Amino acid sequence: MNAKSADSILEEATAWWSTAIIDIHPGEIGVRGYPIQELIGTLTFAQMIWLMLRGELPTAPQATLFESALVAAVDHGPQAPSIAISRMAVTCGLSVNGAMASAINVLDDVHGGAGQQCMDLLHRIGAQSKNGPVDPDVVEDALDNFIVAHGKVIPGYGHRFHPVDPRAIKLLALVRAAQDDGVVSGLYARIGVLIEKSLARRTGKGVPMNIDGATAVIYSVLGFSSLLGRGLFILSRSVGILAHAIEQTEQGGRIKGPMPTSIPYQYTGPPARHLAVACEK
Amino acid sequence: MNAKSADSILEEATAWWSTAIIDIHPGEIGVRGYPIQELIGTLTFAQMIWLMLRGELPTAPQATLFESALVAAVDHGPQAPSIAISRMAVTCGLSVNGAMASAINVLDDVHGGAGQQCMDLLHRIGAQSKNGPVDPDVVEDALDNFIVAHGKVIPGYGHRFHPVDPRAIKLLALVRAAQDDGVVSGLYARIGVLIEKSLARRTGKGVPMNIDGATAVIYSVLGFSSLLGRGLFILSRSVGILAHAIEQTEQGGRIKGPMPTSIPYQYTGPPARHLAVACEK
Amino acid sequence: MNAKSADSILEEATAWWSTAIIDIHPGEIGVRGYPIQELIGTLTFAQMIWLMLRGELPTAPQATLFESALVAAVDHGPQAPSIAISRMAVTCGLSVNGAMASAINVLDDVHGGAGQQCMDLLHRIGAQSKNGPVDPDVVEDALDNFIVAHGKVIPGYGHRFHPVDPRAIKLLALVRAAQDDGVVSGLYARIGVLIEKSLARRTGKGVPMNIDGATAVIYSVLGFSSLLGRGLFILSRSVGILAHAIEQTEQGGRIKGPMPTSIPYQYTGPPARHLAVACEK
Amino acid sequence: MNAKSADSILEEATAWWSTAIIDIHPGEIGVRGYPIQELIGTLTFAQMIWLMLRGELPTAPQATLFESALVAAVDHGPQAPSIAISRMAVTCGLSVNGAMASAINVLDDVHGGAGQQCMDLLHRIGAQSKNGPVDPDVVEDALDNFIVAHGKVIPGYGHRFHPVDPRAIKLLALVRAAQDDGVVSGLYARIGVLIEKSLARRTGKGVPMNIDGATAVIYSVLGFSSLLGRGLFILSRSVGILAHAIEQTEQGGRIKGPMPTSIPYQYTGPPARHLAVACEK
Repeated sequence: MNAKSADSILEEATAWWSTAIIDIHPGEIGVRGYPIQELIGTLTFAQMIWLMLRGELPTAPQATLFESALVAAVDHGPQAPSIAISRMAVTCGLSVNGAMASAINVLDDVHGGAGQQCMDLLHRIGAQSKNGPVDPDVVEDALDNFIVAHGKVIPGYGHRFHPVDPRAIKLLALVRAAQDDGVVSGLYARIGVLIEKSLARRTGKGVPMNIDGATAVIYSVLGFSSLLGRGLFILSRSVGILAHAIEQTEQGGRIKGPMPTSIPYQYTGPPARHLAVACEK
Repeated sequence: MNAKSADSILEEATAWWSTAIIDIHPGEIGVRGYPIQELIGTLTFAQMIWLMLRGELPTAPQATLFESALVAAVDHGPQAPSIAISRMAVTCGLSVNGAMASAINVLDDVHGGAGQQCMDLLHRIGAQSKNGPVDPDVVEDALDNFIVAHGKVIPGYGHRFHPVDPRAIKLLALVRAAQDDGVVSGLYARIGVLIEKSLARRTGKGVPMNIDGATAVIYSVLGFSSLLGRGLFILSRSVGILAHAIEQTEQGGRIKGPMPTSIPYQYTGPPARHLAVACEK
Repeated sequence: MNAKSADSILEEATAWWSTAIIDIHPGEIGVRGYPIQELIGTLTFAQMIWLMLRGELPTAPQATLFESALVAAVDHGPQAPSIAISRMAVTCGLSVNGAMASAINVLDDVHGGAGQQCMDLLHRIGAQSKNGPVDPDVVEDALDNFIVAHGKVIPGYGHRFHPVDPRAIKLLALVRAAQDDGVVSGLYARIGVLIEKSLARRTGKGVPMNIDGATAVIYSVLGFSSLLGRGLFILSRSVGILAHAIEQTEQGGRIKGPMPTSIPYQYTGPPARHLAVACEK
Repeated sequence: MNAKSADSILEEATAWWSTAIIDIHPGEIGVRGYPIQELIGTLTFAQMIWLMLRGELPTAPQATLFESALVAAVDHGPQAPSIAISRMAVTCGLSVNGAMASAINVLDDVHGGAGQQCMDLLHRIGAQSKNGPVDPDVVEDALDNFIVAHGKVIPGYGHRFHPVDPRAIKLLALVRAAQDDGVVSGLYARIGVLIEKSLARRTGKGVPMNIDGATAVIYSVLGFSSLLGRGLFILSRSVGILAHAIEQTEQGGRIKGPMPTSIPYQYTGPPARHLAVACEK
């Protein structure tokens, strides 16, 4: 290997790991260009999350609205699979990092993707409503297309447990207040309401916006991509996953299954048989 | 199964999943007793994290100090295995939840346990210094015992990359300020300094406190257990893990290995051989 | 809650976990109906895998062909992200279960889905060729449709490293031998060859079947669904993931990053800046 | 950077990923020195696992005993947390790789470490019994020490569900047969029986060897380290984890929690309260 090629291979190796997020030198850490010591003690955790994900800082009122969405989604109790998995994991011997990993992993398309999917829907409608009122026909078409592609469950609307989601009501009131203060545009909240109205007509009953819909509106008016919206949900729910891992650690227990063993599971397979019989066949 | 036993089995099943964190009923969500709609728009994300983990709310100055520690630890660049794994994972097809899971999982004892281990050391010394000055001999004994049990690397001190960790300096200044304001006790910061002095004497060179030590002091003065301290580090670092997963998703790439393939790996096994030879033996 | 409803709730709970795979009673374990003690010492591990996944036992020649595919895919070296992650993970403190989890997780659509995708393509063509010769036009149409939907990389064909994949050649020879012996149908091997020929015409160069294609043919002729094919690849590659985790554990190392730190990473973000400047804006 | 240092940095980078397992060149794959095409179609999957983990091939009777242990541990039903997690995960949207990752992750010290811990105990006693009979006092001392260090549950003995574990009985019979055939030494089986006898004396009731104990004996007589024994258990149980993930995928279901929601969970936290009250304090 000659000198030239060694240098160029090293250049390629350096470029292999390339990032605009953080710059580190001995004694110096720059985050998005800012020396870390200027950020510590100055930014809230939520502002730091925003800076890391967006590259720039939020204004104070943006940060306030952002915090409200992060606060809203931290937990939904031990019957959610993610939380149950976190608790079962620590009884198998895992540290909190392992319990969080097994649990966060299941925040996938079905258990953790509703917010992202709702944002995609809002953005698709919003892209056809730039700088003007939202055309109800655009909403209808978007819903029709969504239902053809993904089925009739519209992400961000309805809840199998809560007839009305108390988190959504409060979040939407905060969006309206921010809108009245000129902090954010009203576009996505308006689209959200039009979808709600259309669903009421389509189903003949109320299918109110839930927390995934309300946070989708907030993350959208704050300029986040739907992919970031999904990441923010995971950060938020990680708090609950951690809290339950810690609580279960304190409760103790070993190899905790999903139900007490006094409740049997159901076997639906073939009746007892023997290899000899199988081999004779 | 008679009626009585069915009821008692159900009671056991209800108790199987038992939590003091969250109470959910149709249309109602209570977190540590507070209706969720009162928390949304009122608490910062950091205050919500505290409430979820501790059960009660921090005071405002406690929350400020708490935020500084959460802000400080979000990232340490793509050469950290956790960050590299997050980036490699998305190029394998994983969504952000999966990338975060594979990455958070490796924040184990070695890559994510230094803060917890440092807190354990601080608390062990602190337990012998209640309501009084810290006896230097207690520090020496604790260090001696630690080194016998775990080796000479003291968690929370020294850094293989930073001669002085800029995060630690700022965090410790914030602790001193909070102490001057009467917000927190000075106990753990004093212990931290005594350890630093002892290590300087023992090694003949400066082994200054790093971010793990500084956040260990902060979480300790704020009353967190060492287990919670570990969890808080994971929450904080999750922000960097997410930011890098998103950046890599935007960069694209397929099945990204650890280095460009222009750099070969080293094979150290047996030379080429054939099964026939093996069978003859 | 009255007696009746308690019983019916318990019935629902029993049905909640329902399986045809395994039936357990004190002192008795039945797998797919067979007492476990009849299987232990009688079945090979590969036969047990087949029984667990399919519900019935393979014939001896089916099992032999099945073993060959499982053997072929166990490892592809430390520059594969899954293997690198396994090795990095143990240096962060994880046990082998944790290292395997972080690594297996990344065997997702891109890094672990080629076999499944190839099987889907084979089955789509095969469904139009039942009981007769394969119409080359059906192959062309299927490839055209695949390319429109997924791009021009055909899963199971070509390899970025191996001009010819030695595993594929051997596996396809074994399929042909099994076909000559009347063990399996020749349908999917024929389709595989027709795809290879079409790709040669389309690209003007050889794009030979790789291991994903060859195992896709084998799992298909043995009657596995594409989803099971994916699972079998994971089981096979898990062997390599484990072997590398163990080897790295023996080598030692702490917090092993993707490259030695003598090779820096590249920072592409904004130049150093200060919060004061940001606030003035 | 001059030519010399570039070359030496590259050398360091090549050595960074160093393995004796697999050697890959274009068109060539060597596993432990053997060309992969010689192994495919020749080795069983179990023999390949042995070669990957040990570096050399087993004899035929060793391989047979080895298969029996791999077959025995594949599954223990949906009430095991690992299996339940696998099933819950797919209903959250995860592919089989993700479901397997979340599930395998929890095969940690408590849920997956008994075999390794039992092997450590067997090896500790065995190291004091080289080339001779096992001194019962050595067994007693080892048990005393183990109980002081880890508590009175001896890994590999007793089962909370099975009074007698049908897998262990069969596996131990196979060990005895292999011993009679001169395939393996009788050392670890003898130690296993002495522990069983001692536990019967200590507890006043039978605490028979379970599957973890029986596989610990087999992996020990076959020369595996306890770390490898743990890895082998994970490989074996991965089969059940995969089978249940596939079955749940076929059953369908969305966001499957641990129990039907008709069974509530128990809230044990503070009664409902309001922020105003908290702030007044």
